[in-house]
Amino acid sequence: MTIEWVGLDADDTLWHSEGVFQDTQAWFCELLQPYCDPDLNLVERLDDVERRNLHLLGYGVKAFTLSMVEAAVEVTGGRVPSIVLAALVERGKEMLVHPVDLLDGVAETVEVLAGRYGVVIITKGDLIHQERKLEQSGLLDLVDHVEIVNEKDPATYRRVLDHHRIPVDRFVMAGNAMRSDVLPVIAIGGRAVHIPYALTWGHEHAVAECDVPTLTSIRELPAWLVAHP
Amino acid sequence: MTIEWVGLDADDTLWHSEGVFQDTQAWFCELLQPYCDPDLNLVERLDDVERRNLHLLGYGVKAFTLSMVEAAVEVTGGRVPSIVLAALVERGKEMLVHPVDLLDGVAETVEVLAGRYGVVIITKGDLIHQERKLEQSGLLDLVDHVEIVNEKDPATYRRVLDHHRIPVDRFVMAGNAMRSDVLPVIAIGGRAVHIPYALTWGHEHAVAECDVPTLTSIRELPAWLVAHP
Repeated sequence: MTIEWVGLDADDTLWHSEGVFQDTQAWFCELLQPYCDPDLNLVERLDDVERRNLHLLGYGVKAFTLSMVEAAVEVTGGRVPSIVLAALVERGKEMLVHPVDLLDGVAETVEVLAGRYGVVIITKGDLIHQERKLEQSGLLDLVDHVEIVNEKDPATYRRVLDHHRIPVDRFVMAGNAMRSDVLPVIAIGGRAVHIPYALTWGHEHAVAECDVPTLTSIRELPAWLVAHP
Repeated sequence: MTIEWVGLDADDTLWHSEGVFQDTQAWFCELLQPYCDPDLNLVERLDDVERRNLHLLGYGVKAFTLSMVEAAVEVTGGRVPSIVLAALVERGKEMLVHPVDLLDGVAETVEVLAGRYGVVIITKGDLIHQERKLEQSGLLDLVDHVEIVNEKDPATYRRVLDHHRIPVDRFVMAGNAMRSDVLPVIAIGGRAVHIPYALTWGHEHAVAECDVPTLTSIRELPAWLVAHP
């Protein structure tokens, strides 16, 4: 069936995101090191707390910041001064206003796509943060719909497509995350294109690889769509 | 014009919410008291921090919890032990799984409304928390649309109504908050019904009162709609 609709992930597909988290993680480790057993793997411990909280707190910077506070007390056995925890909250607030930095080729490519297809951005994370980034991205006027969702699973994609009356066999999703952008779309009978990002969050790694079309840049997407109608 | 669509707020209109925040505020004050100047008004100080963070963190439990951590360090001049801050984060997580407690008459009334009108729930707060409460409420199968938004201002209402092709002159919004549920809807030319809740969050108080229809319970809404088509 002919492609009529293109779905685009946002974080690490349209703009850089994971780097901000990884920089903050490195800063967290440096900040907490003086209060910890030197053998402790702080990145791993923070990651454990994040995963443990995922079902309760969901995705995004606010959840990550709360997990940093929790992990800091846990890894230091309560020895971390409270002023350091206040610094973690401040850092979270800085992450929320970090300037949006589009990936190479995004603005031109989204414009090309929007001239040929319906375009829907489907992203997860903090509502306020995603709205702010979308606003700053300059892409809002180009796309038809934006959906900020809590979890990108098959049920969510089905709900989003139904909601906009998009037939699944006319839809292709493109994004950097196998777990969130590719596999759930294939699971409901849609097509998906993987555009890997230089950095991948640990949580998104944890899936079997799958044989899907892979592009090295979003710039290649319009030509791919023409070649695979 | 005849009413065809009814918009319903969720927190403190469909289910109890503000009580959980006020209980937590009281608990916060008790917990922090031993580390503070006894003359300090802790409720006020926490409220100040919340308001200050609103534009950055938005609404909901995760924002509130981050503000509690920040306020606790601030009001104690850093003297609060970090283990107490970990307890604040735990409390926030408990708030996120607090059972949904529908207001009196909600289930029956939403069923009646859904039999006669299109019904859209328009609520703000954490995406994951609002989705969980909606799921638990048992109301999802009754309503046509759910919109979880970041801010309930005139632009948001216009966007939501446009999105669902709801003419503003066929729409009535009902909710407990003058600032979020009543005034912005009137501002775009729609109608609104105020159903005050026993408790009002300070932030929602801060508006001029306005002469709008006021009901004492959601149970009165179907009859009001019949009388004011």
